[in-house]
Amino acid sequence: MKLTSEQKKEILDQQSQKNTTKRVTSPALEHILYEAIPVLDHGFVRVVDYMGDDTSIVQSARVSYGKGTKKVSTDAGLIKYLMRHRHSTPFEMCEIKYHVKLPIFIARQWIRHRTANVNEYSARYSILDKEFYIPSRENLAAQSQSNRQGRGSLINGTQADEILTLLREDAERNYKNYEKMLNETYDGETIDTQKQGLARELARMNLTLNSYTQWYWKTDLLNLLNFLSLRADSHAQYEIRAYANVMIDTLKKWVPTTYEAFMDYRVGGMELSSKGKIVISKMIKGETCDHEGSGLSKREWNELMTSFGFENKIV
Amino acid sequence: MKLTSEQKKEILDQQSQKNTTKRVTSPALEHILYEAIPVLDHGFVRVVDYMGDDTSIVQSARVSYGKGTKKVSTDAGLIKYLMRHRHSTPFEMCEIKYHVKLPIFIARQWIRHRTANVNEYSARYSILDKEFYIPSRENLAAQSQSNRQGRGSLINGTQADEILTLLREDAERNYKNYEKMLNETYDGETIDTQKQGLARELARMNLTLNSYTQWYWKTDLLNLLNFLSLRADSHAQYEIRAYANVMIDTLKKWVPTTYEAFMDYRVGGMELSSKGKIVISKMIKGETCDHEGSGLSKREWNELMTSFGFENKIV
Amino acid sequence: MKLTSEQKKEILDQQSQKNTTKRVTSPALEHILYEAIPVLDHGFVRVVDYMGDDTSIVQSARVSYGKGTKKVSTDAGLIKYLMRHRHSTPFEMCEIKYHVKLPIFIARQWIRHRTANVNEYSARYSILDKEFYIPSRENLAAQSQSNRQGRGSLINGTQADEILTLLREDAERNYKNYEKMLNETYDGETIDTQKQGLARELARMNLTLNSYTQWYWKTDLLNLLNFLSLRADSHAQYEIRAYANVMIDTLKKWVPTTYEAFMDYRVGGMELSSKGKIVISKMIKGETCDHEGSGLSKREWNELMTSFGFENKIV
Amino acid sequence: MKLTSEQKKEILDQQSQKNTTKRVTSPALEHILYEAIPVLDHGFVRVVDYMGDDTSIVQSARVSYGKGTKKVSTDAGLIKYLMRHRHSTPFEMCEIKYHVKLPIFIARQWIRHRTANVNEYSARYSILDKEFYIPSRENLAAQSQSNRQGRGSLINGTQADEILTLLREDAERNYKNYEKMLNETYDGETIDTQKQGLARELARMNLTLNSYTQWYWKTDLLNLLNFLSLRADSHAQYEIRAYANVMIDTLKKWVPTTYEAFMDYRVGGMELSSKGKIVISKMIKGETCDHEGSGLSKREWNELMTSFGFENKIV
Repeated sequence: MKLTSEQKKEILDQQSQKNTTKRVTSPALEHILYEAIPVLDHGFVRVVDYMGDDTSIVQSARVSYGKGTKKVSTDAGLIKYLMRHRHSTPFEMCEIKYHVKLPIFIARQWIRHRTANVNEYSARYSILDKEFYIPSRENLAAQSQSNRQGRGSLINGTQADEILTLLREDAERNYKNYEKMLNETYDGETIDTQKQGLARELARMNLTLNSYTQWYWKTDLLNLLNFLSLRADSHAQYEIRAYANVMIDTLKKWVPTTYEAFMDYRVGGMELSSKGKIVISKMIKGETCDHEGSGLSKREWNELMTSFGFENKIV
Repeated sequence: MKLTSEQKKEILDQQSQKNTTKRVTSPALEHILYEAIPVLDHGFVRVVDYMGDDTSIVQSARVSYGKGTKKVSTDAGLIKYLMRHRHSTPFEMCEIKYHVKLPIFIARQWIRHRTANVNEYSARYSILDKEFYIPSRENLAAQSQSNRQGRGSLINGTQADEILTLLREDAERNYKNYEKMLNETYDGETIDTQKQGLARELARMNLTLNSYTQWYWKTDLLNLLNFLSLRADSHAQYEIRAYANVMIDTLKKWVPTTYEAFMDYRVGGMELSSKGKIVISKMIKGETCDHEGSGLSKREWNELMTSFGFENKIV
Repeated sequence: MKLTSEQKKEILDQQSQKNTTKRVTSPALEHILYEAIPVLDHGFVRVVDYMGDDTSIVQSARVSYGKGTKKVSTDAGLIKYLMRHRHSTPFEMCEIKYHVKLPIFIARQWIRHRTANVNEYSARYSILDKEFYIPSRENLAAQSQSNRQGRGSLINGTQADEILTLLREDAERNYKNYEKMLNETYDGETIDTQKQGLARELARMNLTLNSYTQWYWKTDLLNLLNFLSLRADSHAQYEIRAYANVMIDTLKKWVPTTYEAFMDYRVGGMELSSKGKIVISKMIKGETCDHEGSGLSKREWNELMTSFGFENKIV
Repeated sequence: MKLTSEQKKEILDQQSQKNTTKRVTSPALEHILYEAIPVLDHGFVRVVDYMGDDTSIVQSARVSYGKGTKKVSTDAGLIKYLMRHRHSTPFEMCEIKYHVKLPIFIARQWIRHRTANVNEYSARYSILDKEFYIPSRENLAAQSQSNRQGRGSLINGTQADEILTLLREDAERNYKNYEKMLNETYDGETIDTQKQGLARELARMNLTLNSYTQWYWKTDLLNLLNFLSLRADSHAQYEIRAYANVMIDTLKKWVPTTYEAFMDYRVGGMELSSKGKIVISKMIKGETCDHEGSGLSKREWNELMTSFGFENKIV
């Protein structure tokens, strides 16, 4: 990640602010506020604003339950209780805003989370940055044979070289032709004074999907947790997971108690179907129990055994 | 409005906070933060948290438009432009949270705004406050004869006395019987130690719709503006308008530039249909123009004339 | 439930329609379309429109996965897979619309599901029906001592009689006074020709929370499932569960395959926290495992044991 | 637009359905149901399902207003009234589902409408179609000099040829290299049996933004109208307007009365600010009125004059 001198100055200006407020603050998050945390080769995540902290969740839960909650001893206990029982509305009382730079094909996955507020850099108005995501060699995986949407073993050697060269050359050539059609370079120079430039809203169609875009993305804490539990999951594409993991670090700084509950109940937790529950009950009691008669499909049986680290899978 | 000593202490504690933050602050809003602003006879509105200010709108708009917006001279000019052209997403970048105490029949109107986050006091858990909305005499209006959902002339004299007495007596009696069924008074005393109390989730059904409830209500600025333009409108019921008007004052303190644009383009503005536009064009040119041939219904014609303060209505 | 002769006629008219369509239809749901299914003492649920069936879910999932899904053998297998892995968007492709009559205090719980579309009967415009929910004796439970939002043992004998009398008398008196303030009876007769009637939007505040209202409520299948899993749950208040249970029957008729998957993975399923998973793994392996050292709170431990039907709870 | 023989067969199968239903139907929409209406060079729009018609709007509005609406004479009158006064919830009672094929850079604009349900073809699972949007010569416009996001005069002659050649060659080369990295052609043939193919979720990043994708897109009528009023507007990019215009035709077939009201109040209508209203009032009364003293910015003044077709603009 390479910030322009303009961006560096903006960040320093923002970080030098020292305002007084009666609002609650999250000191650990204040510490990294506005900082550009690098992700992938040219991307970043910056926390640029937030509202509330762990105590805001507790405060609104206590409004709901009124005098009735007085007895629950601790804030941490209440937050765990809310998380465990999916009492979700108190988690909506906190809000956070990120500034993110990311490749377009990842932005297209990300935007499917509809509950957030977004302002994206518009290539109808302005020329897009001259930066493309090129995977590092340790992420250049082959298509999985078993999982239709996953990655298999690494590609390496000359085939890896070839692929990386193709990706780089195609992105660069297409960007160069984008400038040519615009009749204007990234640096703002007119190429041929005798010609007009193609409308930006048209020229952009020549760019590749690994071009970087950026946006402000604002969400409440509940929807952030939903985003993170899906996108930090091992089934998510590596490139979006890289963003989610960095954001989990910011979560930990912002609302440490919620973070603990989230890791225990969501990230590390699992769901059991009603048939799966019967299988597990039998296994605990030491009763014989195999796939046949469980009502589970072969796939479900294996997923269940894997979850508990047992070997008795079937094929 | 009468706050309990517990509530007063909580507000003082909150107001005595003095935290340092790198976030933008809104000094005029900080000034009234946490304060309970009275509405109706027992209700209030308190701003309890916020995120962003006018500059946050500008900042995210400039991300969207990139280098292209550099030329728009002022922040105020950009905010007016966004408001006029309904470029709405930058207004979603600010967030505010209110604590509101309000009668249940008003809460039922309010909750129809679905985009907000809400935590309401739960009468399944706790006993509801012993407070009911009783209109003041100057708001005791008869059903309008012309407008099916409006108010007509004032009711006064002995009929007004009768109505106020009915409202007060019914609310009080029903509350008293609520306590009796709960077998517990508002102050927490058991009434008859030989009896059980009815489940709270059942007993509450005996309360009247003018009982007061309270909630935390959090929304982004765009949806707040939508709420205010509908609920501060003269067609809205007086009781919800009373809340909206107080909230417009908080809007003015929070985001003064947005407030100006909102008053000019939304609150004081109007919409013209394509047929209405033709009528107005003709009137400007001094051409004869009457209801017949305008394509407008009688009702539309009159609404149009009223908007511009002209007398030529038809009946 | 007693339908007016007007309502009966409307239902018969609707049911006698026989239109031809190229859209998919759900024959079992068509069979009960428009029918008023009784709930509680005066309420009902009617399915009044729908869009799509089980095949619509499959169709849109196959668009997402493209040629890649050709190999998944059956529609039922695909729907189970989607439900298990919370691939939720294909379930949004079906839509259903209900007409519901329900007590206001239940409507207030229901409306918290924000993703639905709603048109409710407006007491600003019209006079509310003269019907109140009065619980049957077998639902007249005391406040639970252990669970702050639950019901405990039944209240019976004279105390039950007293409560039922209070509820009935207060609702009826308040309705009578509502008519008096309106200066108009439920049947539309003016009470005193010398007086004006109080505005409807004001008079309604005298009604009790067990008054019946009605609405059209439209939602997609995914949000219907979320609603049903929360509201048919044993922790939900009995009165809303009564509605949810009737709606589960309509779900079964509409999308039988989705219904099966829903019952297995959602209704009958459970969630395990990461700490709970470790406890269960140990129990399966026959290792000693008790509350101490599990990292679970006492409450969590007991909830876990109860889920699997084991006795080793702690106090 | 060229449909595969598989797609043609699917459409014929769907169109040959003849089911009986008690639901309301929209005969004119049934007539074109499932048909692929061509848009741009390879795109299409198909209506694949719908729920409700004009009478559904009326029906739910009458539930809201109860007996009070009996007097509004006609359905059309009621729909116009609802549209004029932005009583929006009854329009949410109808739902429609489209199958759309469109270029990715247009899909990225479209998806910003967050209230719809979407299932998009996934390039993580499957190989994307070998089709790219290439503008026709009459749409090859230069960047506007006056409007930062608009198009100016046409580009033609050899510069147009050059641009079209660049767009075509870059898209084709990048697709070819996409196949090479996948080690699999669009037709499913393995290229080099000695090599693995790069994971699909990675290879796709080499594609250009004018590649075609497709999705199922489902929305309620209110949100469809919002989408159409923004995207059929003259300020919208030509390529998305092409889709919006075709969809307005389907709107007309589906809900003809709503369509009329929409064209009158939304598409052909305009908004006046409070300051603009004063200007217009003066002009009607024949008072002198110029930019100075109007409180309008130069830009606003000119927009206002243009709206009414007057010449007195300022520069």
